[in-house]
Amino acid sequence: MLIDAVLTPAEIALLPQRDLSGTTCVVFDVLRATSSMISALAHGAAEIHPACTIEEALALKLRMPDAVLGGERNGDPIAGFDVGNSPLEYREAMAGRRIITTTTNGTVALRACELAPRVLVGALLNIAALATELRAEATKRLLLICAGTFETFALEDAYAAGLLIGQLGAATMTDAALTARAVAAAYADPLTALQTARNGQALAASGRAADVEWCAQLSKYNVVGQMSAGVVRLLNA
Amino acid sequence: MLIDAVLTPAEIALLPQRDLSGTTCVVFDVLRATSSMISALAHGAAEIHPACTIEEALALKLRMPDAVLGGERNGDPIAGFDVGNSPLEYREAMAGRRIITTTTNGTVALRACELAPRVLVGALLNIAALATELRAEATKRLLLICAGTFETFALEDAYAAGLLIGQLGAATMTDAALTARAVAAAYADPLTALQTARNGQALAASGRAADVEWCAQLSKYNVVGQMSAGVVRLLNA
Repeated sequence: MLIDAVLTPAEIALLPQRDLSGTTCVVFDVLRATSSMISALAHGAAEIHPACTIEEALALKLRMPDAVLGGERNGDPIAGFDVGNSPLEYREAMAGRRIITTTTNGTVALRACELAPRVLVGALLNIAALATELRAEATKRLLLICAGTFETFALEDAYAAGLLIGQLGAATMTDAALTARAVAAAYADPLTALQTARNGQALAASGRAADVEWCAQLSKYNVVGQMSAGVVRLLNA
Repeated sequence: MLIDAVLTPAEIALLPQRDLSGTTCVVFDVLRATSSMISALAHGAAEIHPACTIEEALALKLRMPDAVLGGERNGDPIAGFDVGNSPLEYREAMAGRRIITTTTNGTVALRACELAPRVLVGALLNIAALATELRAEATKRLLLICAGTFETFALEDAYAAGLLIGQLGAATMTDAALTARAVAAAYADPLTALQTARNGQALAASGRAADVEWCAQLSKYNVVGQMSAGVVRLLNA
C-alpha cells in the first residue's frame, strides 16, 4: 500500500486536477464536520448530503424538505438552519433522517474527492473501524485528506491521519504521510492534540470545549461512512 | 514571537496574495537549492540571483555575462549552464562571483516572498547562525517556508524548519509550525531524516548520495544569507 496525505486546503483546491483513479480517499475534518457525520451515522442517520455552499444546501433542502439542514460558518450555526456543526447535535433524533450539511472545509474536501473510486469519512471516533475496513480492502493507493480550517492547515486532521497510518501496518509512505505519522507521535493522547490545535483552543474559547472532548474519543463507534455520488451512508448498513 | 510555516508548494503559489508585512521569511529547500546557496555564500560568492524560470536566468546572464549560471530541472543540470544544483559545485572558485540560479522550487519560493520586509535563506548547513540572527532580531512574525518538490511537500524542508524552531526558544506556534517541530522530533539525526525523505532517496538513486550527506551537515557554516530586491547576499559581509 502507498499512503499519501494532503496536508493543506491549498492542495485540496487542486484535487479535482489530480488523478485519483485507483485511490481510496479518507477525509478528516476532526473539528468538527466529519466527527459530526460519524456521530450522526452511528445514531442511525440514513444519508448525509455534504454541500459546498449555503446556496447548494438550500437547493437540496427544496428537493428534500424532510431533511435536517445543518452546518456552520465561522464555527457558528447558519441562520435558519435546523442544527449547527456540533457533533452533540447529531446524536439524537437522527434515526432514519436525511441530513444536508455545509461547512467551510470538511464538506468541501469530501466533494473535492468525488472522482475517486472510494471516499470514506475520517474521524477519531471511528479510527479503528476505518483501519479494519482499509486493511480488509487492501487498497493499493490511500490518500488521507486533512481538510484544515479556511486556508490553513489543521493539526487535528494530520493527527488523526497519522493515528490511522499507525493502525494500517507496513506501507510505503510519502513525505506527507510520514509527517502525519510524526504529528500523531508528538502527542500523548487525542485530547492533548486537539486541545493544542488552534481549532481546539478556538472552540474552547467560544464555550464549545465539550465538542472538543467529544471529537477526541478514540474509536467510540464501530462504523464507517462512505460517500457515493455525493451522498454519505453507513457502510454495510 | 509568532511562528508560522508554509508546508506545501500549493500554499507558496498563494504567498503573493498574503499579507507579509512585518514578517521575516526563511525559505528552506534543503535538497538542494538553499543548501547550495549557503555553500556558495560561505565560499565567498558575492551575489546570488534566484530566477523563477530558465528564460529569466538567461536574460539575467545577458545583463551579467561574468556571472556563473546554475540550476536544475528534474534534478539534472540545465543544458548550456555552467553548473547544476549540487552544493559540491558551489564550494570552489566562487569567491567574489555573481551566481544566477534557477530551480523548480527553491528559487521560486524565495521570489514568492519578495514583498516581505526580510527574507533569509534556510539550510541545515547554517541553522545555528539563522537561530542566532532571529533571536537577535526579535522578529514578531516568523514564517518558515518549506519549498517542497514540484507540487509536493518535502519532509527535509519541514525537518529543517522544525530544527530551527527548536533553537528559537519560547514562541507561539501555529498548527503548521507545531507540525514542523513534530517532524524534527521524529528523526534521530539530520542524515536519517534526509535519507528517509523522497528527495534523499531519489538523489541517492541517481548517484548523488554525497549531496545528501553534504546538505545534512548541521551548522557547518556560521553565515546568514539574505535576499533584498531579489538578490541574495551574505549578511554583514
